[in-house]
Amino acid sequence: MKLNFQPVEVIEKSGKKLLKILDQRMLPEKEVYRTLENSKEVAEAIYTLSIRGAPMIGVCAALGLACAILNGENPEEARQNLLNTRPTAKNLFWAIERVFKSFKEKGKDAAMEEALRIKQMETEASKKIGLNGVELLSRQSVVLTHCNTGALAAPGWGTALAVIYFGWERGKIKKVYVDETRPLLQGARLTMWELKKQGIPCTLIPDSAASWIMKSEGVDAILVGADRIAKNLDVANKIGTYQLAISAKFHSVPFYVAAPTSTFDEETPTGEEIPIEERPPEEVSSTFAENVRNPAFDVTPSHLISAIITEKGIIKP
Amino acid sequence: MKLNFQPVEVIEKSGKKLLKILDQRMLPEKEVYRTLENSKEVAEAIYTLSIRGAPMIGVCAALGLACAILNGENPEEARQNLLNTRPTAKNLFWAIERVFKSFKEKGKDAAMEEALRIKQMETEASKKIGLNGVELLSRQSVVLTHCNTGALAAPGWGTALAVIYFGWERGKIKKVYVDETRPLLQGARLTMWELKKQGIPCTLIPDSAASWIMKSEGVDAILVGADRIAKNLDVANKIGTYQLAISAKFHSVPFYVAAPTSTFDEETPTGEEIPIEERPPEEVSSTFAENVRNPAFDVTPSHLISAIITEKGIIKP
Repeated sequence: MKLNFQPVEVIEKSGKKLLKILDQRMLPEKEVYRTLENSKEVAEAIYTLSIRGAPMIGVCAALGLACAILNGENPEEARQNLLNTRPTAKNLFWAIERVFKSFKEKGKDAAMEEALRIKQMETEASKKIGLNGVELLSRQSVVLTHCNTGALAAPGWGTALAVIYFGWERGKIKKVYVDETRPLLQGARLTMWELKKQGIPCTLIPDSAASWIMKSEGVDAILVGADRIAKNLDVANKIGTYQLAISAKFHSVPFYVAAPTSTFDEETPTGEEIPIEERPPEEVSSTFAENVRNPAFDVTPSHLISAIITEKGIIKP
Repeated sequence: MKLNFQPVEVIEKSGKKLLKILDQRMLPEKEVYRTLENSKEVAEAIYTLSIRGAPMIGVCAALGLACAILNGENPEEARQNLLNTRPTAKNLFWAIERVFKSFKEKGKDAAMEEALRIKQMETEASKKIGLNGVELLSRQSVVLTHCNTGALAAPGWGTALAVIYFGWERGKIKKVYVDETRPLLQGARLTMWELKKQGIPCTLIPDSAASWIMKSEGVDAILVGADRIAKNLDVANKIGTYQLAISAKFHSVPFYVAAPTSTFDEETPTGEEIPIEERPPEEVSSTFAENVRNPAFDVTPSHLISAIITEKGIIKP
């Protein structure tokens, strides 16, 4: 499965190593690439969602930290800039600490090697997630997905969308329903853009129509990603995931979570302990901003999940 | 409970009877009143959602038809213009046919008298719905609502929002969570505007956050309106209502539907036979319009409904 865009890469400019990213805020209208000059710009790109998706922000933070160290920034300050961006995704902390440890133990070049190794590892994980997930699907499945879990969200082919990409190649996918995913519309803007680019039949729906589509049209499986998976297999993911899982249970539709093992957090016992990021109220409404709740994520208890698809195999909670 | 705006009234201008409406498409930014010159303009205002809400479109169509007849339009053509606007709400057909029958049997003036009687009846029904619904609430309830069911949607104080208005006066309401209600954001634009105008504490949330709010914050009751209620008490209402009802059941939160008896359709045996309006795809996305499903309503089966609140009393399915 060949994808024809590159969401993140390291480039050389005036003797410095810099991160070049596809700015996801401009999609689908424009494909704008930006070069990030230092760790503060990388942190800002992560906070403002120019780069997003749990595995992708892990990889970008890792590469951003390695670039910063090579370019002579204070390593501890660069690390802090990147840690203080988004609280929910496990991959972010995991990737930053791996790169920082390599730097401490083996120096600057080892930091970049480690960051590139993480990117390579996540790319391979993505492919294996795709292939493992395909085994769960029947031929010509109608699937429904939420938010964006594609190549924009995780290096390679993504997570839940990797299952759809590899499933499409193998005749397992008939059609994809895409939740628009308020408030930032990552489904409407990013997942639709990715699926159309690959020629996969897709239909956009308001988030609130998902249950009605399950009932009136029929859906064979729901596929979503994860931002953090607790030890008891509770899953934090984009707000709306929990609602979908409840509805999937009600309609007896299998509910699958796809995520690399870097998303698993052994140190968080249950979903209760996962910090849930509250985003700016203006993302929902500028007129009534003082009266808005905008939790970016929710937690789906493991008993509502049919299976978690990882690069190492399938886990049934 | 005094409301300080008038969503619809009949005015006299150059010897003609005309409908003056508050254009709901402009809210909350601007309060723009428009005068509708003939039945075609009334029909267009209904189709484009300048006027909306099942009881309100019934009343506007009734008044619009009576004005058209008094102003010398062809009565049959005016009736057809108004019938061909929106297929789901029962009140529309019910109100048009009552006015047309009065005209046929007793003439022009009887048509206007009947239309004004319908408006008066719906206003009284609204108050009784509010007072009947209040009985179902405990003191200081946290409630959640979907779409707009207030004074903009039904003459008087609305339907589900009438329960909230009268409940607020009686200490039964602590706070209201408002689903923004994609794609046209009637919750974010209209319900928030109404509640703020009355000083009732309200918090706007994305539709997909409703289940998470039920779980993490606690909700004592869900209150929604209805566009048509079938003989078996299945309820057609704004898309997303079905999803909320499933989630309410999962969280053991009472799920109440508030509607005047003009919404009940004895001739439709079950929800299966209710026609569901599909709205223009551009309401959801202009970029991917050819790949959009935009059902305006869904059907909630009666077994998910705790009670239906009408002006005549409470029905428990």
